[in-house]
Amino acid sequence: MPGAVSPLAVPLPPLAPLAGVRLAAGAAGIRYKGRDDLFLVELAPGTTAAGVFTRNKCPGAPVDWCRDALKAGRARGLVANSGNANVFTGRAGREATRASAAAAAELLGCRPREVMLASTGVIGEKLPTERLTAALPGLHAALADDAWERAARAVMTTDTFPKAAVRTARIGGAEVRLQGFCKGSGMIAPDMATMLCFVFTDARIPAAALQAALRKAVGASFNNITVDSDTSTSDSVFLFATGQAKHPRVPAEGGPALRDFTAKLADLLRELALMVVRDGEGARHLVEVNVTGAVSAASAKRVALAIANSPLVKTAVAGEDANWGRIVAAVGKAGEPAERDTLSVTIGDTMVATAGSVVADYDEAPVAAHMRGREVRIGVDLALGRGKATVWTCDLTHGYIDINGSYRS
Amino acid sequence: MPGAVSPLAVPLPPLAPLAGVRLAAGAAGIRYKGRDDLFLVELAPGTTAAGVFTRNKCPGAPVDWCRDALKAGRARGLVANSGNANVFTGRAGREATRASAAAAAELLGCRPREVMLASTGVIGEKLPTERLTAALPGLHAALADDAWERAARAVMTTDTFPKAAVRTARIGGAEVRLQGFCKGSGMIAPDMATMLCFVFTDARIPAAALQAALRKAVGASFNNITVDSDTSTSDSVFLFATGQAKHPRVPAEGGPALRDFTAKLADLLRELALMVVRDGEGARHLVEVNVTGAVSAASAKRVALAIANSPLVKTAVAGEDANWGRIVAAVGKAGEPAERDTLSVTIGDTMVATAGSVVADYDEAPVAAHMRGREVRIGVDLALGRGKATVWTCDLTHGYIDINGSYRS
Repeated sequence: MPGAVSPLAVPLPPLAPLAGVRLAAGAAGIRYKGRDDLFLVELAPGTTAAGVFTRNKCPGAPVDWCRDALKAGRARGLVANSGNANVFTGRAGREATRASAAAAAELLGCRPREVMLASTGVIGEKLPTERLTAALPGLHAALADDAWERAARAVMTTDTFPKAAVRTARIGGAEVRLQGFCKGSGMIAPDMATMLCFVFTDARIPAAALQAALRKAVGASFNNITVDSDTSTSDSVFLFATGQAKHPRVPAEGGPALRDFTAKLADLLRELALMVVRDGEGARHLVEVNVTGAVSAASAKRVALAIANSPLVKTAVAGEDANWGRIVAAVGKAGEPAERDTLSVTIGDTMVATAGSVVADYDEAPVAAHMRGREVRIGVDLALGRGKATVWTCDLTHGYIDINGSYRS
Repeated sequence: MPGAVSPLAVPLPPLAPLAGVRLAAGAAGIRYKGRDDLFLVELAPGTTAAGVFTRNKCPGAPVDWCRDALKAGRARGLVANSGNANVFTGRAGREATRASAAAAAELLGCRPREVMLASTGVIGEKLPTERLTAALPGLHAALADDAWERAARAVMTTDTFPKAAVRTARIGGAEVRLQGFCKGSGMIAPDMATMLCFVFTDARIPAAALQAALRKAVGASFNNITVDSDTSTSDSVFLFATGQAKHPRVPAEGGPALRDFTAKLADLLRELALMVVRDGEGARHLVEVNVTGAVSAASAKRVALAIANSPLVKTAVAGEDANWGRIVAAVGKAGEPAERDTLSVTIGDTMVATAGSVVADYDEAPVAAHMRGREVRIGVDLALGRGKATVWTCDLTHGYIDINGSYRS
């Protein structure tokens, strides 16, 4: 699906080597021709690992594999491919994960359960494991500390630009680094896409604390974005801590020592999550939905997601139409406490509706100008309580239909 | 928004006079030029009335009016307009309903609360009540028993064809008639559309029994369709019983006497509901989703709606692509009990996936032929229990984007 780069694309930041991480990417010929589709990562001994995975009840075989393997909280390797998601592949899928992990473990000198796996691409087709395992020795021989961009590109599917972000954080006065990349365009598009995210840090963090930090940070980032409301069978976010940085010991329960680390991790994940929305299939506008005054934060999030997932709101944004009526209707359909006669709607910085009706004679010029921009902000205040939430989405355009509905035209 | 008639359109059935009902439609100039946009119905003294309305928390003023007025279970008149939904119009909206009902009541010689109201069209703009009330005397003078088609056309918005259905039912051995029409194209499209349905019968049914029958029938029809998952602020289904037919008395609680009537009513409503889907904005395929083997009927319905609302499933149908992977993914995201390794997927009459993976060497020819047809059947068996549900939707096409997202292009 070769297409123009998203108008919302952002450039790749410089990706420096990170102690304890070596990578290699290459072309295994799993499905695509003439491009990288596989990467291998070697992690230093002692690396701890955490993961957050899709809530989809029909997860891919790699998700099952990693959920189980991560119980030990350790990783020495990571193998990821594009072109085939290894989802709904039954026993063959489970065998493919075992064989892939075993082949990588053999090369890396570790146990298979210390190898994490991620796959993205077509659903329901048997993963050509032999092509993947045949390519691994070459990748192992090529491992280097500077192959970050190639790895980020190797797992792209309908993505139109590679996505990476970096942060530094402090643990007990010492500086540690965080560096990660992700792929994703539709929240799910089984023929083409899913969301995979790989984050690495040189910090030394016990597995339990690492998992807690990741879960918290994902809750504040990837769980607040939606492209098309379709939850992938393969969504995975990994966090690996190589333990190569020098800093005071982090206790098993994490706690205050990880406060800055967790905040920076959430910040990094939010940047990556927004890149996924910026590369949402067919996206031409990035949309931020802020809901305030809800009865709780959970209620605010459900209202915000109802707005962000509304096809009518999303097509209105595509048409650069400040259609606040559709926003009110989406609030109403969320099923959450909301009072028609107290809520207000803001587009950009202009309040367009309040107290149950349109703001008489609001200035349409700044609203129209805001809608013509690439980044649209929608605010809804329910005036019922103190719950608030922010979610991000993109518009729904002809591009989405082209990518997902026009295979045969 | 003049467009071609939906390729899924069905013809209008013959609409004969129904004892106790007189109608008139005309052009009030509420928003559209050169077409009917208003109708008035006069109902015989003694007519009982029932209604089922949107669950949207931000309903239009007419919905508020009718919910209140229907507590008495009586109606002598009905006024409906297109072009303006009278939604999110604050105090002005409430005043508009009072003034409209009062004007019609004056003409019909009844109390304002015996006049039901329905509006569809743009949200957030003040209803030009004076144009509506100015047109009513002319309509009253023109009341006739044969203006059914004109009334059905007067409330069309993005609809591409008028929608009506008729049935006969038996009450205690005597025959009664049911005749209704509806409008709707997007489940909601505040600038243009909503779903309104008006059903009339010559039966003599106490209000409580009428309301119970309507609620049950709506649950088996309109509540099982989705075009774009957006619930309108104005959705309304009315049922009026003029009491002109001769049949044994129906008790207040309804009961066995109304068994056939309720079944035929549900059947009529299902036919109308399917017409709405057939006229779904941009629809080119009607999709029936059957879920079986769920742990309960409610669970089956949630799974079926997850499939029917999935943009990826809907775009796949638009592309005539038998993308069963997206169906599996939609099942998984529903959050309902489902086992990847026991579920099976059928497209048309062909099982394409079962027991956790694709059916090896299934015959693709009948599947491809089925997808090229206008009516697509998707079956999912969860193999967990006996819960089942059927919902209907349409595909998601460029037409939907054109109608809803291209106002300014």
